[in-house]
Amino acid sequence: MHDLIIIGAGPAGLTAGLYAGRFGLSTLIIEKNFVGGQIILSPMIENFPGFPVGIQTDKLIDNMRRQVEDLGIKISMREVEKIEIDKDIKKIFTQDEALQAKSLIIASGAYPKKLGVPGEDRFVGKGVSYCGTCDGPLFKDKEICVVGGGDRALEEAIFLTKYAQKVNLIHRRSEFRGSDILKKEIGCNKKINIVLDSVIDEICGENKVSSVKIKNLKDNKATTLNCDGVFIFVGMHPNTEFLKNILQLDKDGFIITNQEMRTSCEGVFAAGDCRQSPLWQVITACGDGAIAAQGVHQYVMPYNKH
Amino acid sequence: MHDLIIIGAGPAGLTAGLYAGRFGLSTLIIEKNFVGGQIILSPMIENFPGFPVGIQTDKLIDNMRRQVEDLGIKISMREVEKIEIDKDIKKIFTQDEALQAKSLIIASGAYPKKLGVPGEDRFVGKGVSYCGTCDGPLFKDKEICVVGGGDRALEEAIFLTKYAQKVNLIHRRSEFRGSDILKKEIGCNKKINIVLDSVIDEICGENKVSSVKIKNLKDNKATTLNCDGVFIFVGMHPNTEFLKNILQLDKDGFIITNQEMRTSCEGVFAAGDCRQSPLWQVITACGDGAIAAQGVHQYVMPYNKH
Repeated sequence: MHDLIIIGAGPAGLTAGLYAGRFGLSTLIIEKNFVGGQIILSPMIENFPGFPVGIQTDKLIDNMRRQVEDLGIKISMREVEKIEIDKDIKKIFTQDEALQAKSLIIASGAYPKKLGVPGEDRFVGKGVSYCGTCDGPLFKDKEICVVGGGDRALEEAIFLTKYAQKVNLIHRRSEFRGSDILKKEIGCNKKINIVLDSVIDEICGENKVSSVKIKNLKDNKATTLNCDGVFIFVGMHPNTEFLKNILQLDKDGFIITNQEMRTSCEGVFAAGDCRQSPLWQVITACGDGAIAAQGVHQYVMPYNKH
Repeated sequence: MHDLIIIGAGPAGLTAGLYAGRFGLSTLIIEKNFVGGQIILSPMIENFPGFPVGIQTDKLIDNMRRQVEDLGIKISMREVEKIEIDKDIKKIFTQDEALQAKSLIIASGAYPKKLGVPGEDRFVGKGVSYCGTCDGPLFKDKEICVVGGGDRALEEAIFLTKYAQKVNLIHRRSEFRGSDILKKEIGCNKKINIVLDSVIDEICGENKVSSVKIKNLKDNKATTLNCDGVFIFVGMHPNTEFLKNILQLDKDGFIITNQEMRTSCEGVFAAGDCRQSPLWQVITACGDGAIAAQGVHQYVMPYNKH
């Protein structure tokens, strides 16, 4: 039986592994897609402290992976289908095996909701982005589109005017859902062009985004808008479907924890984007992971004394 | 008036600066001692994610400082004597100036606790030290004592064997609190002599340390151990004296915050080692700093609307 199984090998899971390894906990990391998680969607990270000119995301993730593997911790590529908590024993079911651990760290991440339009997948990292903080600086003096109508979209649109020359804020309804303060600010910002009752039908370009096709939902008119970037903020989904009825989740499915990263279930911790948090960033996910590993260390210690 | 003043330029303050700068907040960082804070006392960091073979602490801090300064944020070297909260305006008093800001992030860190035994104060700089990196090289081929049982004490004991001929590692309990990887390393190191269940009662010498009086807590036996240095790693005090009666602190003086890094005073946030937290590490301090800056961003936005 492992001391700890970590579900997810993004920054939260990898940092949890780094700390767990140094605590001497026998640890296995399970990852269903690819090491690094959703941050891999951004080519460069400029806001991770310690890298003055930024770092390529794959390089940063590779560094984190090496730190974990150098401690003898394995990353196993498989999907968790179900977990069962049998008091002190945590059971993890994958397609072909059942695993057991004394504790769990859920670091299963989240993924941005997609528009689901042609060109979206093809131009990820080539003009299509789901993170203004990460990619905004790449669009200095360019024209871009921001899609969405909630707080996140409005905040990101305002933020992106620091870089972009013009921001077209596209929302399918006739009114934004976001907070009044943000709506007012959007209205006053001369760099923001509001496009309501409209959706993007297609994202176009050769090797990178050069335009979008926009449809007005009231009159069904189609227009083409030239732009270099499309930032999509239409919601996040946490990867927590397999935890329903096991852990306390908020209405959007994010895991509720306290400051020690403890979930509603003893011996089960959560870290990173799958957790209800005021900010989802690589650096905060790493901090979460370290704290969760510390919690596991304290939880598992009484077991391992005997 | 600044949008934000950050008190402290350690990893928490620098990361808060990095995020605040990217949020476009006009930000000033104030530091009383040296950029980097107490982590500068450790020569190498091995557990900061992203650096597989570790990184020299001064290099990591210099990288973080560059990220902040590249955003046009200044780090001003001065000491905060007093702060006053006048509703929306936060006033910072230094020796020769009063500064104002709409918001504050307290990232003032912590400093090492003393043993409180005779000889300790008298021999600071003459054999008594709280910093292996700073003073280790002074004890080449000498015999020294290291006091403490946590990660920091174990790390420093190992580091100090690079210089000292013999390191007596003295801990008042029968077991170290530190992580297993360090405990194993300590056990294998032939230069380290482990002295458990024991405390130093007095540090003795003429002009500099020449011996310590050690008491075994189990049998109350006293022994004298000849040595040239005493390195003390028994915990931390937060730098929060100037915040008494202003912010809610815990019994040890650490600032109490919620998960958003909000303190008991609106518009004042805290991050890093000065904050009550389950784990004080560079990576968690950085995570705190990012979240605090996000909180400031949301807090300051209504001001800056007009």
